[in-house]
Amino acid sequence: MNGAETLLRTLVNGGVDVCFANPGTSEMHFVAALDRVPGMRPVLGLFEGVVAGAADGYARMADKPAATLFHLGPGLGNGLSQFHNAMRARTPVVNVVGEHATWHRQYETPLASDVAAYARPVSGWLRTCAGARTLPADARAAVRAAWGPPGQIASLILPADCSWGEAGEPEPPTEPTSRRTVDDSVVQEVAAVLASDEPAVVLMNGAAVRADGLHAASRLARASGARVLADTFTPRLQRGAGRSPVERFPRYPDQGAALLAEARHLILVETVPPVGFFAYPDQPSWLTPEGCRIHTLAAPGEDSVAALEALCERLGAGPDDAVIQEPAVPEPARGALTPQSVAQSVAAYLPEGAIVSDEAVTSRGGLPEATAGCPPHDWLSLTGGALGGGLPMGIGASVACPDRKVLCLQADGAGMYNVQSLWTMARERLDITVVVYANRSYRILHNEFDRLGLGEPGAGARALMDISGPELDWTALARGMGVEAHRIESLDAFNQRFAEAMRTRGPQLLEVVL
Amino acid sequence: MNGAETLLRTLVNGGVDVCFANPGTSEMHFVAALDRVPGMRPVLGLFEGVVAGAADGYARMADKPAATLFHLGPGLGNGLSQFHNAMRARTPVVNVVGEHATWHRQYETPLASDVAAYARPVSGWLRTCAGARTLPADARAAVRAAWGPPGQIASLILPADCSWGEAGEPEPPTEPTSRRTVDDSVVQEVAAVLASDEPAVVLMNGAAVRADGLHAASRLARASGARVLADTFTPRLQRGAGRSPVERFPRYPDQGAALLAEARHLILVETVPPVGFFAYPDQPSWLTPEGCRIHTLAAPGEDSVAALEALCERLGAGPDDAVIQEPAVPEPARGALTPQSVAQSVAAYLPEGAIVSDEAVTSRGGLPEATAGCPPHDWLSLTGGALGGGLPMGIGASVACPDRKVLCLQADGAGMYNVQSLWTMARERLDITVVVYANRSYRILHNEFDRLGLGEPGAGARALMDISGPELDWTALARGMGVEAHRIESLDAFNQRFAEAMRTRGPQLLEVVL
Repeated sequence: MNGAETLLRTLVNGGVDVCFANPGTSEMHFVAALDRVPGMRPVLGLFEGVVAGAADGYARMADKPAATLFHLGPGLGNGLSQFHNAMRARTPVVNVVGEHATWHRQYETPLASDVAAYARPVSGWLRTCAGARTLPADARAAVRAAWGPPGQIASLILPADCSWGEAGEPEPPTEPTSRRTVDDSVVQEVAAVLASDEPAVVLMNGAAVRADGLHAASRLARASGARVLADTFTPRLQRGAGRSPVERFPRYPDQGAALLAEARHLILVETVPPVGFFAYPDQPSWLTPEGCRIHTLAAPGEDSVAALEALCERLGAGPDDAVIQEPAVPEPARGALTPQSVAQSVAAYLPEGAIVSDEAVTSRGGLPEATAGCPPHDWLSLTGGALGGGLPMGIGASVACPDRKVLCLQADGAGMYNVQSLWTMARERLDITVVVYANRSYRILHNEFDRLGLGEPGAGARALMDISGPELDWTALARGMGVEAHRIESLDAFNQRFAEAMRTRGPQLLEVVL
Repeated sequence: MNGAETLLRTLVNGGVDVCFANPGTSEMHFVAALDRVPGMRPVLGLFEGVVAGAADGYARMADKPAATLFHLGPGLGNGLSQFHNAMRARTPVVNVVGEHATWHRQYETPLASDVAAYARPVSGWLRTCAGARTLPADARAAVRAAWGPPGQIASLILPADCSWGEAGEPEPPTEPTSRRTVDDSVVQEVAAVLASDEPAVVLMNGAAVRADGLHAASRLARASGARVLADTFTPRLQRGAGRSPVERFPRYPDQGAALLAEARHLILVETVPPVGFFAYPDQPSWLTPEGCRIHTLAAPGEDSVAALEALCERLGAGPDDAVIQEPAVPEPARGALTPQSVAQSVAAYLPEGAIVSDEAVTSRGGLPEATAGCPPHDWLSLTGGALGGGLPMGIGASVACPDRKVLCLQADGAGMYNVQSLWTMARERLDITVVVYANRSYRILHNEFDRLGLGEPGAGARALMDISGPELDWTALARGMGVEAHRIESLDAFNQRFAEAMRTRGPQLLEVVL
């Protein structure tokens, strides 16, 4: 069996059965092996950012890694920004990067590139296959490394001759490693802190912001008086009616510092101490006040949910202590078309089980508040700040959960980075509704320009912050890639089209002109 | 004066007066300084691949570097594949990458990234500014490093506080370093080789494939009997009526090995020994036969044109020895719409001074042959094999040469990688005609699949090589970004529209349905 086939079979044995790909010549044996290996679904992206972001969204929802396939260093380069987001989300990915044949790498060919150097900034695990015979074991190691926990990007560099050479047999099935249990001594220490009268803040991410973790954390908050928050950006937050709601840590450093000002204990659950997203000339980066002690209940990838439940046990927090979100679905909004009214109408129609890929950026208009009491749903955020993740993540989420409605809430500027995503949505007939907020501006840059006290932007600065000339026509872009699209210029039209999109299946784009 | 302003003024003093950019928060002071520094033209790309590729095309035509501006590691990551092409073209670029403030870099923020690690694979020069006071000197050093010769990507990492801090005064004007003169002893050695009866091949790139170098090389060929070729991929080839034509080294290794089989001397002019683009199981990578001696007349960045002329002098090759291309413009083609007939019609209407950005890939259909006798023009090729360079290079070429017609000959699959380029063409009202060859396929992958003997692709393989479902509508994509577009389904329509596009100014796209 050649290397490519053992690789694919080992991946499938390891539960990795979707491959997001944009291949080139050096990956042709991998591509050919797809015809011989049942159980691996190839999904093509016309750009590598689509591929990387889709793998991120997929694993957040499938709770297992997808494979990705790229062509040499420059191909991987195009995927790095979305892998950066995946790395921050601790998303598992088995990242296969084709490389020149081992004997060909020494030459200065046009595509010669240090593939490992390209992979290093985003990879938690990195290996270059040395020969076809080791490929099955390399593939198995990559799958195990990707799983973690915590998940990480495991990059396997695959010289072409390792694909076409004789490789023996694939590796047998692999099981993911389970999460490490938090030591009882740690639970005890944190319980003592929470039992004291000193003000405490609990900051959570990872598995702790899924339904079970939030339920336990809510019991804990009631029993201890601690303030419980989720990180500003979370890979997958479970929320809606019947679940325990959670407050988010604020985005800007002055707000974050104010929130923590009185805290004497900061308890971390699968996260790190909060810092400002960006630095500002006169504001702190480090937000934890002096005299506030930091405790780690669970490191990323540890069994945070069991630790939270053990903590509840110790503190005598009963099941009924949890705050449970009441159902509360607003009426569709009336009046002007604004981010706020759109948020209300989205909430009015959001179906149960929806997956929201949120890259609305400055157009959110109170979306989280409006949707708090909607039927239970998942919320995916941009975790690494690299714009352009919203549409690809929607692809991955929909491939992982074909029976659930995916809703991409997408700022127009950010949406252009991986606009090629629309084509994959059409090709795979994914059940995705994209709402584009067309404000014709890098509004966030205007906000930051203002926040930095830079005054009124002149012609030079506006040339890099306004995207109104020419105006993008998102309906044309969508149709150009095979996606049904509608231009929305009134709230009535939005209500009608959005409600219809929630009722029907298939990809669709609504361009909301703000 | 703050750092950002000294940076901009130092760049302008160094002749760098165009900045292709996609900025973020950490670059806001740079953006604001554009309002205070006359003489720097900011050009926005909605995606970083557009920015990097445009800088490549610009410098190839302007013979001086542009600046680029990116946002942290992930923003630069999106530009790496086009910088890879620029690196292979030895294109000068002053690459400014914004970074978190110096004191903020230590924290695990969402966008924390090892910017230098991102920059390293493509940068010939790399420095992180340590403080605002050193920024003017850092900027000057970056400009000098970018120039070379040979040109290279000089990456200056710019922490936000270096931009907003007090930096003193900008650096005075810089002059580019001139090309190093080739030693007379080298010219003598090569002259002796060429004067012998042993078969010799001269392989050229860089400045040697501009008009003067090709003229000298042609005299040399006639006088010595050596076979003179240009590399398969050249940053900028000058050709057409009145110039000396040159043969290109073939793309595939079997063809390259056959061409060199009898050679006893290989003479390199601003290039490296030829190797196969990709490796194949039963073909050589290294193409120079045993017993063939390799001589370097001029290393990249050395004064190759003067060296070629000195060689002519020694060998007694007179000005009249050069082959001069006769004008030969074909009639517009008639009949079916094919890559071949399109090539003929392109040649029929190509205006004098046109700049061709060639990413036609498998749809070239004899373009080089058809256009050989057209009025003089420049031909830009994809030098590093990273797809998606055609449209961005066209932008850069047009910004550099606003009075010349730019023609992007663009394969559809490759065109999607940086499709956002169309928007910048519209925004800057560039005089670019884009011809998209819509064959709905990664045809080159089909070719390579076949060349590797992998048989008939099945459903799995086709899922990653066919892009026909859904069909891209390039006219919709273009209109969505503000570019006039026409769908072309007959040769008559092509002849009419293309002729019209050559006569009028402004961006336009013709989707040729093959």
